[in-house]
Amino acid sequence: MSTENMALAKKCRGRPKQFDRDDALNKALKLFWKYGYEATSLADLVEATGAKAPTLYAEFGNKEGLFRAAVEHYLTLFVETSNRALMQSDVPLRQSIEEYLRAAAALFTDCDNPSGCFMVCTSATLSAASEEIASMLRSRHHLQEETLSEFLDSKKETGELSPQVSSRILAKYLNCTVQGMSVQARDGASRAELNQLVDVVMAIWPQLIAFEAQPVTSA
Amino acid sequence: MSTENMALAKKCRGRPKQFDRDDALNKALKLFWKYGYEATSLADLVEATGAKAPTLYAEFGNKEGLFRAAVEHYLTLFVETSNRALMQSDVPLRQSIEEYLRAAAALFTDCDNPSGCFMVCTSATLSAASEEIASMLRSRHHLQEETLSEFLDSKKETGELSPQVSSRILAKYLNCTVQGMSVQARDGASRAELNQLVDVVMAIWPQLIAFEAQPVTSA
Repeated sequence: MSTENMALAKKCRGRPKQFDRDDALNKALKLFWKYGYEATSLADLVEATGAKAPTLYAEFGNKEGLFRAAVEHYLTLFVETSNRALMQSDVPLRQSIEEYLRAAAALFTDCDNPSGCFMVCTSATLSAASEEIASMLRSRHHLQEETLSEFLDSKKETGELSPQVSSRILAKYLNCTVQGMSVQARDGASRAELNQLVDVVMAIWPQLIAFEAQPVTSA
Repeated sequence: MSTENMALAKKCRGRPKQFDRDDALNKALKLFWKYGYEATSLADLVEATGAKAPTLYAEFGNKEGLFRAAVEHYLTLFVETSNRALMQSDVPLRQSIEEYLRAAAALFTDCDNPSGCFMVCTSATLSAASEEIASMLRSRHHLQEETLSEFLDSKKETGELSPQVSSRILAKYLNCTVQGMSVQARDGASRAELNQLVDVVMAIWPQLIAFEAQPVTSA
């Protein structure tokens, strides 16, 4: 081995393990998902990610920055997968909705991850000091309902959904079911049990898309 | 004023303000409801209740004891009110369910209290150290589903519900909707918006009670 190569080999051996941002985010995400924002300390995050505190600070600023990055990571990894069911314009409406709901059932009971929806779980309780995080999570929830509502609107254009149906209310109802499924998963419901709830939605689907809402009279 | 009466008056004036357990529980409940178990410190509880820390310790043992008492307080004050809709044997099934759901919508958006269901909000995320509390909340949730399921069973005996309908799945579905409504309320949904979700349930009610479940084949 040349002197140069020996020096390189020594350098490689001695080089500190490179920081793997994605791996750290994955681990941080799971911790926040399971225990929430408040109950997860920076010490817990350091231990779980295997990174040093200064590395985490340099990369994410603080616990809030790491949490925000974890939210983006979750949306990219998981929510985009569920939303894919709403992107295929050649799939019939009913099938898209069923795929969307079953994807949620699968995600909420995936044994590689904590139970339930990360966004629903972490937004349930936040201290007064975390109002900014609470409001960020709320707007993300609304965005999800909007995605669903726009999807339903697009199905009116293709004639698959009657123009009399309120996309907004139907999206809210479906979203309410998904959010309830998240709570059920957190309470220990199995994937089969969540899929039974999806069976109910699919059985009543013809009536759901025949529902014509009365206007809301009081706020 | 007799000497005895004067002594009594003096004693009353000088007596330290009596600890009002119910009032303290009310205030503690609201704090836990809004911020969850982890993000609520004993210092926050002392400040909110106006009681001294030793008084709270003497009465409830510790934060966990106070939380458990708050859960009982919530069940007595709020859940029993909602369940009353399921107790009136002379009320038709459909009306009982509608009253039950609208009572939940009212409770979750009562401006005197934090939004959503106290049990759903506080059970979403708990640290590893709070496993006992998590399991207590889980069993309370299951109890609520059981109450609903038993109510539906009783309606099979009166002939109002077909024996083919699975009380367990229908109870799970209704519970899922209520839990989703709690998440929606937490995200800022108004009472009118929650009542629109109840409108949907009531519109599809005939189909909901006609749903015959397939047995679960995998856990």
